[in-house]
Parts: sequence; C-alpha cells; structure tokens
Amino acid sequence: MTGTKRVPGATITRLSIYHRQLELLEFDGYRQVSSDKLAWLCQVSSAQVRKDLGYFGGFGVRGVGYDVLELQAHIREILSINKVWNLAVVGIGNLGSALLRSRGFALKGFNCVAAFDKDPAKIGKFTAAGIRIKNITELARSVKEMHVDMGVITTPPSEAQRIADMFIRGKVNALLNFSPIRIYVPDCCLVENIDFTIKLDILTYRLTHGDMN
Amino acid sequence: MTGTKRVPGATITRLSIYHRQLELLEFDGYRQVSSDKLAWLCQVSSAQVRKDLGYFGGFGVRGVGYDVLELQAHIREILSINKVWNLAVVGIGNLGSALLRSRGFALKGFNCVAAFDKDPAKIGKFTAAGIRIKNITELARSVKEMHVDMGVITTPPSEAQRIADMFIRGKVNALLNFSPIRIYVPDCCLVENIDFTIKLDILTYRLTHGDMN
Repeated sequence: MTGTKRVPGATITRLSIYHRQLELLEFDGYRQVSSDKLAWLCQVSSAQVRKDLGYFGGFGVRGVGYDVLELQAHIREILSINKVWNLAVVGIGNLGSALLRSRGFALKGFNCVAAFDKDPAKIGKFTAAGIRIKNITELARSVKEMHVDMGVITTPPSEAQRIADMFIRGKVNALLNFSPIRIYVPDCCLVENIDFTIKLDILTYRLTHGDMN
Repeated sequence: MTGTKRVPGATITRLSIYHRQLELLEFDGYRQVSSDKLAWLCQVSSAQVRKDLGYFGGFGVRGVGYDVLELQAHIREILSINKVWNLAVVGIGNLGSALLRSRGFALKGFNCVAAFDKDPAKIGKFTAAGIRIKNITELARSVKEMHVDMGVITTPPSEAQRIADMFIRGKVNALLNFSPIRIYVPDCCLVENIDFTIKLDILTYRLTHGDMN
C-alpha cells in the first residue's frame, strides 16, 4: 500500500460505508458487484468509488466489477479492522449502556472490555454484557493494564476533558468523544467527535435552504 | 443571503461547530473574538473560518474580529436554529431514551414531542421527560397531527426502512438515522446518518497509518 498519508478523511469514511454495503451484498448472496451498483447503494458516484479505491491500488476488474469478499478483505486491511480492538466506555448512562450493548461494535471487532463511572450507585454493578463498572479514579491504571486501544467518552461535557486526560495518562491515544464539547489532546492522541446536534443543524439548514451535496 | 445553494456541506458542519464555541466564549464573558482564536478553538485554519463565513457575507471587522453575540445570531439564522423544531423519536431503547433526555437538544430548540415503540411493555408508559410512548402503528397519523418536523430513528436496522416510510407517509421530510443501515427516501426527503462504527473505523485507520486531515 503506498501513499496512504495523503488519503483524504472523506475517503476513509466512504471506505467504511463501502465495507458495510459489501457485507450486506455478501449476506444477500452476491459474489460480484459493479462499481455502478456499489456506488448507487452507497449514494455516491461510481467515479468516486473508483477514485477512493484507486488510492489503494484499485482492486476492480474492468467489465466485471469487484469481488464482494475480496474487496471486503482489502478494505478491512486498509482500515485495520481485521483485528480486535479493546474499548473502554466512560459514563454508563443511557448512551454508555447503549454502546456497551451494541452488537454492531462487537461484530466489527470492537470489544468493550472496561466500563467506568463516578456514581457510587453504579460502581461495582455489572453491565448487561457482564462487565463490572469501575470507579473513574481507577481509569488511568486500569486501561493501561488491560491494553485498551480506544476510549469512548459519554460523560456530561463538564467531565469530558478530565476523562480525556486520564485516558492519555493511561497511554490510550485514540478517543471517541460523544460529549458536545471539543476536547484538547496532545499531538500523539487522536480524537473523533460525535455530536448529534450538529447533524440536526445540518437538517434544519437543508430543510430551510434546499438540499446541498 | 445569497448563493446559499452552493455552500458545501462541510461548511455547514463547521458553522455549527463555530456556533458551539461562540456560546462557550459568551459563557466565559468574551464579547469579541479574532478569527485566529475562533479557528484555534475549532481546530481549523483561520483562512477556513473566513472562507466559511464569507459565503454569507463575512461579518468580521478587520483588526477587531467578530462580535461574539452578533456572529452567534447570524449563524443561528443561517442554520435556521433560531426557531423551535419538533422531533419524534422512534425506538425507545437505551439510545432513544438518552436522546429524549438530552439537554443539548432542548437547549438548541430541538423539542422532542413524540416517542414511539413497538414493544407492548413500553407502549403507554411515560418517558423521563413526561412523553407517553405510542405504538408505531400510530406513527404516520400522529406525526402529521403534531406537526413533527424531524424524525429520529433509533430502531434495529431491520425496522429502519419501514419506520422511514411511515414518517414520509406522515409528511415528515427530515430524518436523523442512528440505525447502521442506509435508508432510501424520495428526493423530497432529507436523511442524515449517524453511524458510530464508521468513526471507530476512522480511528483504527488513523492509529495504524498515522494521522490524516
């Protein structure tokens, strides 16, 4: 694989979407798919599909399209989802609980191995998946011992930065932040933010001004 | 406001992020902010801030920067979040419950007015916010009567398309889809997808291949 440093973020997002659709095609019994059909399923242009896959060498056969299983395997390798990643979730409210129970996570190799909260009523209890909820005071030490790869933050915004700092002390350098606040991390650390209200703002804009790409 | 049809989606996303940071600046007592500082807070370049705001006329004063309250008001108008929008949530599991309780939604004028599920054990019960959970068989009629603006889908993937169709029959033309499946809607309808596992794929890619923009 060459030149991966220059791949746009939007391409990586789309690769993840292509992979999802390829799984569904496999489930439906398809072995081949044209770039036109894959593009239609993913609501992008087929030129976009070819361009995105072109960053990594192409994979398609002219006039035949893509092998559904092969392309899945290639994308899994590109995205590094062909291994198991250990996740720790902090903030075991409704959202944290929903994530811990998510079959989607587990099926894709994201394994929730630890859960933390600061509420004494929750600490020591077990989640539906059988994970004992620990006190956040144990976070930094615990995630290091358990080889956690990624931290998931679903606390109120006022706690989010403190939790991020704890993860970094515990040598966890990738964070998924559901709290509606930007968190600041050193350059060695990666953060992806999920803010539902931003998506709502996009909908209100599109409803009012007409669609956009 | 001119030319809003040609504004890129990424600009709209960033406007929402700028708005969030301007609220925080207001809370901290700031009345002015430079484009450099706003850019730093939002983790973009100051050229990007000026370009994004330039689509709508600029708003800044050279050498002074932006008025924190004025720019907030402008962005609220651009995004059409200066009014109240009615939301209906379908699928009252952990995630649906978390959304119904979200203070972030209510504070930004997104008002959850209806909740639906198909589980007889939930139908008729009240959510923490005092909304009675209705049977999804009532969805299309109910959302039309209640003037729901947006539908939020947090059902399992196997139900998502059916729920989307019900919303469309109920004249709800904007959907926020949390289900990890693409849903297909007529051109008059808008969909924004939130798929957590895509964000995880981006993190695994970045962890493995080094950062990307």
